[in-house]
Amino acid sequence: MIDITLPDGTVKSFENNATPMDVAKSISEGFARNVISASFNGTTVETHTPLTTDGALVLYTWNDKEGKKAFWHSSAHILAQALEELYPGVKLSIGPAIENGFYYDVDLGDQTISDKDFKTIEDKMLEIARGKYDFSLRSVSKADALSLYKSQDNEYKVELIENLEDGTITFCDHSTFTDLCRGGHIPNTSIIKAVKVMSVAGAYWRGDEKNKQLTRVYGISFPKQKDLTEYLHLLEEAKKRDHRKLGRELELFTFSAKVGQGLPLWLPKGAALRERLEDFLKKAQKKAGYQMVVTPHIGQKELYVTSGHYEKYGADSFQPILTPNEGEEFLLKPMNCPHHCEIYNAKPFSYKELPIRYAEFGTVYRYEQSGELHGLTRVRGFTQDDAHIFCTPDQLDKEFKDVIDLVLYVFGSLGFENFKAQVSLRDPNTPEKYIGSDENWEKAEAAILNAAIDKGLDYVVETGEAAFYGPKLDFMVKDALGRNWQLGTIQVDYNLPERFDLTYKGSDNELHRPVMIHRAPFGSMERFVAILLEHTGGNFPLWLMPTQAIVLSISEKYEKYAEKVLNVLENNEIRALADNRNETIGKKIREAEMAKIPYMIIVGEQEESKNMISVRQHGGEDLGMISAVDFAEVVEKEVKKTLKTFK
Amino acid sequence: MIDITLPDGTVKSFENNATPMDVAKSISEGFARNVISASFNGTTVETHTPLTTDGALVLYTWNDKEGKKAFWHSSAHILAQALEELYPGVKLSIGPAIENGFYYDVDLGDQTISDKDFKTIEDKMLEIARGKYDFSLRSVSKADALSLYKSQDNEYKVELIENLEDGTITFCDHSTFTDLCRGGHIPNTSIIKAVKVMSVAGAYWRGDEKNKQLTRVYGISFPKQKDLTEYLHLLEEAKKRDHRKLGRELELFTFSAKVGQGLPLWLPKGAALRERLEDFLKKAQKKAGYQMVVTPHIGQKELYVTSGHYEKYGADSFQPILTPNEGEEFLLKPMNCPHHCEIYNAKPFSYKELPIRYAEFGTVYRYEQSGELHGLTRVRGFTQDDAHIFCTPDQLDKEFKDVIDLVLYVFGSLGFENFKAQVSLRDPNTPEKYIGSDENWEKAEAAILNAAIDKGLDYVVETGEAAFYGPKLDFMVKDALGRNWQLGTIQVDYNLPERFDLTYKGSDNELHRPVMIHRAPFGSMERFVAILLEHTGGNFPLWLMPTQAIVLSISEKYEKYAEKVLNVLENNEIRALADNRNETIGKKIREAEMAKIPYMIIVGEQEESKNMISVRQHGGEDLGMISAVDFAEVVEKEVKKTLKTFK
Repeated sequence: MIDITLPDGTVKSFENNATPMDVAKSISEGFARNVISASFNGTTVETHTPLTTDGALVLYTWNDKEGKKAFWHSSAHILAQALEELYPGVKLSIGPAIENGFYYDVDLGDQTISDKDFKTIEDKMLEIARGKYDFSLRSVSKADALSLYKSQDNEYKVELIENLEDGTITFCDHSTFTDLCRGGHIPNTSIIKAVKVMSVAGAYWRGDEKNKQLTRVYGISFPKQKDLTEYLHLLEEAKKRDHRKLGRELELFTFSAKVGQGLPLWLPKGAALRERLEDFLKKAQKKAGYQMVVTPHIGQKELYVTSGHYEKYGADSFQPILTPNEGEEFLLKPMNCPHHCEIYNAKPFSYKELPIRYAEFGTVYRYEQSGELHGLTRVRGFTQDDAHIFCTPDQLDKEFKDVIDLVLYVFGSLGFENFKAQVSLRDPNTPEKYIGSDENWEKAEAAILNAAIDKGLDYVVETGEAAFYGPKLDFMVKDALGRNWQLGTIQVDYNLPERFDLTYKGSDNELHRPVMIHRAPFGSMERFVAILLEHTGGNFPLWLMPTQAIVLSISEKYEKYAEKVLNVLENNEIRALADNRNETIGKKIREAEMAKIPYMIIVGEQEESKNMISVRQHGGEDLGMISAVDFAEVVEKEVKKTLKTFK
Repeated sequence: MIDITLPDGTVKSFENNATPMDVAKSISEGFARNVISASFNGTTVETHTPLTTDGALVLYTWNDKEGKKAFWHSSAHILAQALEELYPGVKLSIGPAIENGFYYDVDLGDQTISDKDFKTIEDKMLEIARGKYDFSLRSVSKADALSLYKSQDNEYKVELIENLEDGTITFCDHSTFTDLCRGGHIPNTSIIKAVKVMSVAGAYWRGDEKNKQLTRVYGISFPKQKDLTEYLHLLEEAKKRDHRKLGRELELFTFSAKVGQGLPLWLPKGAALRERLEDFLKKAQKKAGYQMVVTPHIGQKELYVTSGHYEKYGADSFQPILTPNEGEEFLLKPMNCPHHCEIYNAKPFSYKELPIRYAEFGTVYRYEQSGELHGLTRVRGFTQDDAHIFCTPDQLDKEFKDVIDLVLYVFGSLGFENFKAQVSLRDPNTPEKYIGSDENWEKAEAAILNAAIDKGLDYVVETGEAAFYGPKLDFMVKDALGRNWQLGTIQVDYNLPERFDLTYKGSDNELHRPVMIHRAPFGSMERFVAILLEHTGGNFPLWLMPTQAIVLSISEKYEKYAEKVLNVLENNEIRALADNRNETIGKKIREAEMAKIPYMIIVGEQEESKNMISVRQHGGEDLGMISAVDFAEVVEKEVKKTLKTFK
């Protein structure tokens, strides 16, 4: 008998050679039907691998990351088999599972694959899947392995096998197909009910451009046809909402090869959007007792030696800026905290003056490899909605709660309803990895946990995930397409106060160290605007829209009346435009729809004679004929639905 | 007879050997009494030098820079004589006139001068001056000159003479004193009526720290005692208003050795002040049709190669920033225009869309030697209130006028009433020095001159002072102490549109080059705040004051009422604080005066019982007892006195 420990801690006894599937069935037949892969003592095993020792077993379904990995890894085998059958003489190289699906890199010789062939490949794959073949692993000697692939003239597999250590070579068979493989499959092929070949691309063998270019076939597969349909719909939606596309269409930002990659230029509409976001946060921060400061975008190297950032990141960062004669070295600032510490240090503080909360929309620069850059989500220069709170250890509790309130206010005002929190604590078994006294850590961790509970957050605790300088709380928001984004972080820091020798005079007249909180509800203006674009598809909350309404005159005859209406709207603080071009009203409406303007105000003879306006909402709903002043009230009410006053 | 041409173009005939003073007397005896120096054909001469050829003569009085220079140069001789008489064996080296006064560097041997000795030196100088000695120049041979100073053991003068070319050595005699001298004196010593020794300092011979350190004696002198009194008063005032001192006292900004010299850190009160200035300008700019943009603080080297800045300034600037792997080179941006050109180039424009006006509070970085740095007026990083207008040549006229309106609005709102304009045009004799067509230059120069006349500016024209890329208009403002500052510049630019290949589609459907206007009413936020501090001594216009009013409770008993009053003020958008400390009302008032808070609101028993407040203005004026709401109206009215609505 062997003892199998399950993730919930239950220990069950089984006959020697029981398989993971046997264990699954012992839990329930229904559960077993969903189990598609397993790991034993941390190592991936097949669901039919006999277990011969005591150990910890984890069983995965499609809903687990590991389950999907096995599913897509198995699908790659089927893709390879389909390609072998459809493209005689094809040479296989490698075919892993990836984040979304899988690929196989193949040498097609003189043959080619185009999108017209995708359907044929998919049909062949489904035909194989329906055969309900088991995947079975077997060990082979290096000589046998080499001999198989040499006979097929497959130099890629030969090279892979030659680089493997002796005695660890396994093949996987299913149907008539065999591949070099380490394992980790689903029980059989028939679980795969839907497949899609996504694209083909060129890929150098081993990623080295000196090698031959192979054909990479990307695919994805699902246990239900419905899952595939949903996935493709999501992809389509994501494409429409791609912030790079929307940013271009809505004229929010651009990039210039001359200025440099990863350095966004904010166009007027984008800059205005960003300013509204900043003003919104500034207003809330003012109420919450923050003070704005302004600091330069460079600092002497010494500043970052003091903070410890230079030692840690110096070599991989933008390199130092030298001055012509004076031997000085400056760095582009990668963060604002060292500057804020220097501001704190500019005068002595008493405990009575704490907490001090310095806020800055601080633009920082961090080197990213050009291949890593992506629109506004991965850039080389970005503006953090940064703030640093300097408080006494006793104030930490309240400060942390107040920051959570602010973050929740920001999320609520911007339509992010769906979010989770992660509390990262230190690993109590390795206290040497962290700086700061045990007492302070306990206080800080208790403060964060109390705050999370007190604020009713849906949170998970990750032990050992704290930064070396303090525990933290991160927010993950789910966007309209169900994708998760990390937004908003609150971190406790004992390190910088130490390194910058920050002090305050306590009630005991002695000098004490303040605690620092770093926080950024948006994270960065760039990343936040990108996520907001993808979340809303450009249909921002009304208060944030660049143009809230556009007055469309039916013909040039009503231009004057249109201007009068525009004037009323502007006096009521509605951001409005007028379109008095000599174009049809149909064209004007279409363009306003494209520009995602929430309200179209149509004015013609009837409207002018009655001194009214006809209002059409983005998307088509007709609000009928009302007065401009009444419309202004509608807008105000709508704005207040999302934009509440902070506290 | 010789023909003498005067600065106004008049030509007068004089006997050969007539002196500048003779010419002055021929104009009027009264004028001649004020003439203290002269230049003939561009070379400094003595007022009694016989003129022996035709030529152009300029006569200078104390009011001319050249007149002051002769006055202070002559005074340096008298200082040297006084030192020789008071400090036997003193060795003279050099003693020039400087911007304010003069100095003499002397080797005192074992003797010392302290501030206790200043009065004695001044008395001795005045005694000499009253002697009414003439200054007379004579040529000496190098050998004779050397022999005099060798006999005095004066190695400094010997070294100076040895470095002079033969045949150009002159001595100047007055009274019993002789000095090596090139000339340029006032008629006689008695014109000097007031002298002041300002300070002594160490100074290395020839500025080289490997040489001996000499004693530098600084002095200043005037033709009237009243002038000296005024000067000393001005110095005292300037010291009080030194923006570095006020910036510290009012907690507006600081510097940190770790961040780096010349890189200001704006403290909360300074950042708030700066934000109010920015908001004020933003509002006016919005009305004037500007659009805000945001651009990064770095750009690829290539961007500045395109703009031409790299070739011109690259070597003397902050050096390029390298990336770890990719061979890229970035520069800290020294100006915003190249970035704005790239934004303009992001999409095609039709003439119907012009003018385009991009504005940005853009922080730029320019390397200055550490010795040149000074508070906020000379820094290494500063934020320009920058904007670039892209317009058709035909729009230039109106655009230029509109910019002047904006600049005048800014000056008016900030209490700069006293200013002049300088129009810098190209030198029509050297067209090769300028880029752009003659036609465009003529159009642009006419536009600027028209605008200056049309707006009733007090302006001077400087031919040949235009930048190579276009003509410009600069504003010089006079501050409360009568000092001139350059503030606000408007420049026309034909160069960057060419270099960045900027175009718009004209009504003829062809591509044309737009004209660019660079403009910055403040110049930079840093410099402007510095000048505003020195101009106002920290008593900004009310609308700009960090704290407009402070509520001072007479005792803790009235704290509640004080908070209630504070609330009313805040609801009326008055920036107010409350001082409810357990301190005497006298101390509270003194501190509020120090902090330059415009209104002190005193609340005690009487005020609370009547639901009123007692108002005291900064400086002491009592506004009596009024209601808080009435006071809010007083403030609003006062604000509107300086802060008008733009257009």
